[in-house]
Amino acid sequence: MGNSYGTLFKISTFGESHGLAIGVVIDGCPAGLQIDEAFIQSELNRRKPGQSKITTQRKEDDTFKILSGVFEGKSTGTPIAIVIENQDQRSKDYGHIENTFRPSHADFTYQEKYGIRDHRGGGRSSARETAARVAAGAIAKLLLRKYSVEINAFVSQVGELKSPHYTSLDLTKTEDNIVRCPDSATAEKMIDLIDQVRLDRDTIGGIVTCVIKNTPVGLGEPVFDKLHAELGKAMLSINAVKGFEYGSGFEGIKLRGSQHNDEFYADGDRIRTRTNHSGGVQGGISNGEDIYFNVAFKPVATIMQDQHSVDKEGNEVTVSGKGRHDPCVVPRAVPIVEAMAALVIVDFLLRSKTSKLV
Amino acid sequence: MGNSYGTLFKISTFGESHGLAIGVVIDGCPAGLQIDEAFIQSELNRRKPGQSKITTQRKEDDTFKILSGVFEGKSTGTPIAIVIENQDQRSKDYGHIENTFRPSHADFTYQEKYGIRDHRGGGRSSARETAARVAAGAIAKLLLRKYSVEINAFVSQVGELKSPHYTSLDLTKTEDNIVRCPDSATAEKMIDLIDQVRLDRDTIGGIVTCVIKNTPVGLGEPVFDKLHAELGKAMLSINAVKGFEYGSGFEGIKLRGSQHNDEFYADGDRIRTRTNHSGGVQGGISNGEDIYFNVAFKPVATIMQDQHSVDKEGNEVTVSGKGRHDPCVVPRAVPIVEAMAALVIVDFLLRSKTSKLV
Amino acid sequence: MGNSYGTLFKISTFGESHGLAIGVVIDGCPAGLQIDEAFIQSELNRRKPGQSKITTQRKEDDTFKILSGVFEGKSTGTPIAIVIENQDQRSKDYGHIENTFRPSHADFTYQEKYGIRDHRGGGRSSARETAARVAAGAIAKLLLRKYSVEINAFVSQVGELKSPHYTSLDLTKTEDNIVRCPDSATAEKMIDLIDQVRLDRDTIGGIVTCVIKNTPVGLGEPVFDKLHAELGKAMLSINAVKGFEYGSGFEGIKLRGSQHNDEFYADGDRIRTRTNHSGGVQGGISNGEDIYFNVAFKPVATIMQDQHSVDKEGNEVTVSGKGRHDPCVVPRAVPIVEAMAALVIVDFLLRSKTSKLV
Amino acid sequence: MGNSYGTLFKISTFGESHGLAIGVVIDGCPAGLQIDEAFIQSELNRRKPGQSKITTQRKEDDTFKILSGVFEGKSTGTPIAIVIENQDQRSKDYGHIENTFRPSHADFTYQEKYGIRDHRGGGRSSARETAARVAAGAIAKLLLRKYSVEINAFVSQVGELKSPHYTSLDLTKTEDNIVRCPDSATAEKMIDLIDQVRLDRDTIGGIVTCVIKNTPVGLGEPVFDKLHAELGKAMLSINAVKGFEYGSGFEGIKLRGSQHNDEFYADGDRIRTRTNHSGGVQGGISNGEDIYFNVAFKPVATIMQDQHSVDKEGNEVTVSGKGRHDPCVVPRAVPIVEAMAALVIVDFLLRSKTSKLV
Repeated sequence: MGNSYGTLFKISTFGESHGLAIGVVIDGCPAGLQIDEAFIQSELNRRKPGQSKITTQRKEDDTFKILSGVFEGKSTGTPIAIVIENQDQRSKDYGHIENTFRPSHADFTYQEKYGIRDHRGGGRSSARETAARVAAGAIAKLLLRKYSVEINAFVSQVGELKSPHYTSLDLTKTEDNIVRCPDSATAEKMIDLIDQVRLDRDTIGGIVTCVIKNTPVGLGEPVFDKLHAELGKAMLSINAVKGFEYGSGFEGIKLRGSQHNDEFYADGDRIRTRTNHSGGVQGGISNGEDIYFNVAFKPVATIMQDQHSVDKEGNEVTVSGKGRHDPCVVPRAVPIVEAMAALVIVDFLLRSKTSKLV
Repeated sequence: MGNSYGTLFKISTFGESHGLAIGVVIDGCPAGLQIDEAFIQSELNRRKPGQSKITTQRKEDDTFKILSGVFEGKSTGTPIAIVIENQDQRSKDYGHIENTFRPSHADFTYQEKYGIRDHRGGGRSSARETAARVAAGAIAKLLLRKYSVEINAFVSQVGELKSPHYTSLDLTKTEDNIVRCPDSATAEKMIDLIDQVRLDRDTIGGIVTCVIKNTPVGLGEPVFDKLHAELGKAMLSINAVKGFEYGSGFEGIKLRGSQHNDEFYADGDRIRTRTNHSGGVQGGISNGEDIYFNVAFKPVATIMQDQHSVDKEGNEVTVSGKGRHDPCVVPRAVPIVEAMAALVIVDFLLRSKTSKLV
Repeated sequence: MGNSYGTLFKISTFGESHGLAIGVVIDGCPAGLQIDEAFIQSELNRRKPGQSKITTQRKEDDTFKILSGVFEGKSTGTPIAIVIENQDQRSKDYGHIENTFRPSHADFTYQEKYGIRDHRGGGRSSARETAARVAAGAIAKLLLRKYSVEINAFVSQVGELKSPHYTSLDLTKTEDNIVRCPDSATAEKMIDLIDQVRLDRDTIGGIVTCVIKNTPVGLGEPVFDKLHAELGKAMLSINAVKGFEYGSGFEGIKLRGSQHNDEFYADGDRIRTRTNHSGGVQGGISNGEDIYFNVAFKPVATIMQDQHSVDKEGNEVTVSGKGRHDPCVVPRAVPIVEAMAALVIVDFLLRSKTSKLV
Repeated sequence: MGNSYGTLFKISTFGESHGLAIGVVIDGCPAGLQIDEAFIQSELNRRKPGQSKITTQRKEDDTFKILSGVFEGKSTGTPIAIVIENQDQRSKDYGHIENTFRPSHADFTYQEKYGIRDHRGGGRSSARETAARVAAGAIAKLLLRKYSVEINAFVSQVGELKSPHYTSLDLTKTEDNIVRCPDSATAEKMIDLIDQVRLDRDTIGGIVTCVIKNTPVGLGEPVFDKLHAELGKAMLSINAVKGFEYGSGFEGIKLRGSQHNDEFYADGDRIRTRTNHSGGVQGGISNGEDIYFNVAFKPVATIMQDQHSVDKEGNEVTVSGKGRHDPCVVPRAVPIVEAMAALVIVDFLLRSKTSKLV
């Protein structure tokens, strides 16, 4: 009921921020895949807190254990269960919000929906849950290597600061700085901005752009499970996401059809398009061009300032920001966006195996 | 495999643009619902071609037949099958594209994915499929009436022309003009613009904004099936959609957390928020405030101009626009957006029945 | 919610016995399959009423129309919708049961579950629904031909009369007689018995045995979707079925492990078993040997005799059998069992495409 | 892909016999349920090995840990993850079968399907996986208590030894003896028989009968997800099961309709049936009478005798039984059958919440 994603490569995550552990069960990973545990850990490290001065200073190692589904280093075709124990369980940090609804958090809606909630650190609604997605996404990435598919996300906007279009960037440079923007000049400004916001005890939003290269033609299922519709859902399911656009996106609506259409031409054996307003997807199905999309993240809801709110009984209260939180979520969101993208692409790759008689 | 939507209120659509018929099977409609056939027809009429000078002049009546699931005017709990026969089957209009890939259409991707395609009018990739969604959505709307949920979509942008924010509009006026923008001054300009674009034998994009009022608190499922994630998927699955944002959306990223957070307050028995950057959804679950979101539609790909392209063998060809097409899709997209929104909300309403012990 | 079957080759049926039509939508049929309409009709003819003196004398032609998903004779990968209009709608035959619960029918349970029911001919609970399955199953069979899989069902028991074990029968003779038992001596006795039962204005049960040959090794998914578990569910979903057993079945429990185990041996390149108590399935996965199973059908509930019952208000009433009904359901159940078996096998064939890296 | 069961109350199991752990994630348990951990442990104890002289002497404590989804003793509506660590990992016991296919085990089919397998103790195909089902089933039982539904399974047959029909038994006596047959005279004979089979270094099959009382009217979904069809699938998915029948079952086919039909009568406000050949299910939907069914278990495949077989390369080998195994599986299967029954009933209970408008 909402905690699973995927049709053939299916993940089910579980766990609360301050419970014993979080984790994921992957059902449908084909047998025979070499499971590179060091790579999984390196992906988790890209997401983990405390990695730089512009992220939360909370320390969590996010070390994982594979409980099943891997034998002598390879996937066996049976469910792969991965568990990450919660180490930093300073739940006393959260006593003050036990009966209080923090503004723009999920406290109120969970309380109303379920009549009960684990209030510690947001419980199930915490972004900590995304660590499980990153672990599963790492395995999806290992599988995508077999198909030469490359997925690269980066920070393209913080507040009003924008990087140039991805086509003019060297995406191998994304990890060269702590904000994960491959344009070093923009990156520097972004870091300064986030640092200033942090000193203001405030937070700010941003955009993560993701580019998927070398996708085979034919991924995506008409009519509801269009490739970009699933990408959209996957991205919108990430905490703090407010919008999704692919290809020409919201800007494209201003164009005329004669400007927007992507002409086909023959490039040797391959049929390609001269422009790519389509963002690599036509009729919901990949056409082999770069798939690219933007994911908008709102400013983090937890701020180090006093805010007005109410408690469970509706009494007015003041909520004071405590704990250690991110002034801007996008640097750590980059591996999460990549992980969800990998899960979407892998799932469609497997689904495409039965599209036609062979 | 992609042609169904929903978990408990599940629709499966079928049919090609120029086949015998299109239709939908609804599985999971609770028994005892009065099925108002006149209302279903009125919803189909809002979507049908030929309704005004700024839509395609193609004539299709889109009359429907209910084959099952309704007895003496009421739903019986068994599948409701609805069929709409295709009347305007001038398939000779399409002979010229049998072996040609129209720019920014799904011709190429369907051909590659399936090795075969019904090329007439786009076949399954035609927006004609959305008539089936509108019929199903009408039944979802009938069910939502029992919960007093109101769904109103309207055209908020065409090209660069924007209407004011929905909170300053009277949404009952949407149907007062042919472009479906409740602000009459903007509407007039939009109509002129679309008419000009039509005369230019071109097309243009736009935005449909949708507002959902009176949603109960607690709809939406963590963590992958967040309410806005499903809305996003549902909207992105509509033909020509390029982007989705809810609440503060892409603009919200520029704000600070202290500006963006929605403070809670007690309004009598009800807990509400003073602002609504959250767009009525927090942590993926409805909080009872208005849900509102924008859906970006690209300019229609079919233009009445010559374009360069290739045929199946990769030979260069010129594609000439023929037939009768929409210069701008958003006026007819309004009921489609509403239908998909209704399907999402109904499904979550039914899913919410088992969230907690009662 | 319950009207769909299959994971990748998914069918959704709809329709009531005396509504406008029944039908099925098939989603997930691979593109490029030649759709042999004559074969579909011949399968429907094997199921249709009025085919011999030992079936109901009701006349329905069960002619079908394909509304979508087939272009120039081939499947296109999009949903295949098939409709069979109801011709014999003598609903006046059913006025007497509008408010009455017929013994061992679904009248009472539908009424309680839904608060409303289409009482005419059992409505949705009528075995007429299985015609839709047979049509879908015919397409599944066409696909299985590509893999050389053969499915043959036959009547192996009527009342106490049993045919010999399938391994001593020539299954090509099943259609040689009206009871569909390939052993002509037994068939004759069965026909006489059913005829006697009919004259007694009564009904009797029986067993359909099904044999699937040439299944590839590796079909079936651990742990819940075992091949035989899905076969069991598929068979038990057929009207009037009371039991399912495969391989050694209920008799096998009396054996010792040393008698029951199937020894492996090498038959050229192929690994086979000397005996086949396993019924071709080990650990829920096909091992390449014949899959065989028994399906038990109860005596038809409609009898031409007066029975005691109650009406909706609980008043005592007498129900008198009217209309034209089958004295024994198994001869017409043979193609239904085959259809469901084909649907199960095709679905697992498609699912098996992603079991391992290739 | 096969490792999940249920629609609204959905379980996903993972883990191999000799890996780090087995476990289950439950998604869809309503919030607010008191989770009685002692009860879960007591259910696991009924299944665990080493509990009596007629079960395997292997010692496993099967202690469990709840990782998520429970807060201050109650379910929160989020996924409940339960892990059972594997303690007895004497994998050296299995070195001799690394390359060998044990007769009537899943070794061969897993190897062919996946190209790789964890051979230790059968890996994923081991009945150890059912401990995860029992843990999940215990939570389902806790939920069913709210509806007063009672589920009681017992051993009704071992080899040729049969107990009387359930209606003449006191089912509260099932746990009074180690074979779990409530008829003490039959139980004694069964125990002697199993003990003799064990001394013969052989195994034997049996039947578990399950009775479900107080089920509300209206559970089960037409037409594929009939209540008995799901029960059948659930039971057939248990290791070693070869057959399923409910109500009159295979014997019922010999009856005439006039004998088999269950007459309705009014019992105060309630409409009941005088006989119950229907087994509490009509048209796939519960009618409020006792639901009862039989589950046939084959003799355990592992015997303490030499058997002929082949290795991966097809060479003839002798397989010698080692380790500690059950001479008869049915006593330990009783809680597994109950657990699967509870999971089926709970799922249909939740599904029934949206059958009709309220």
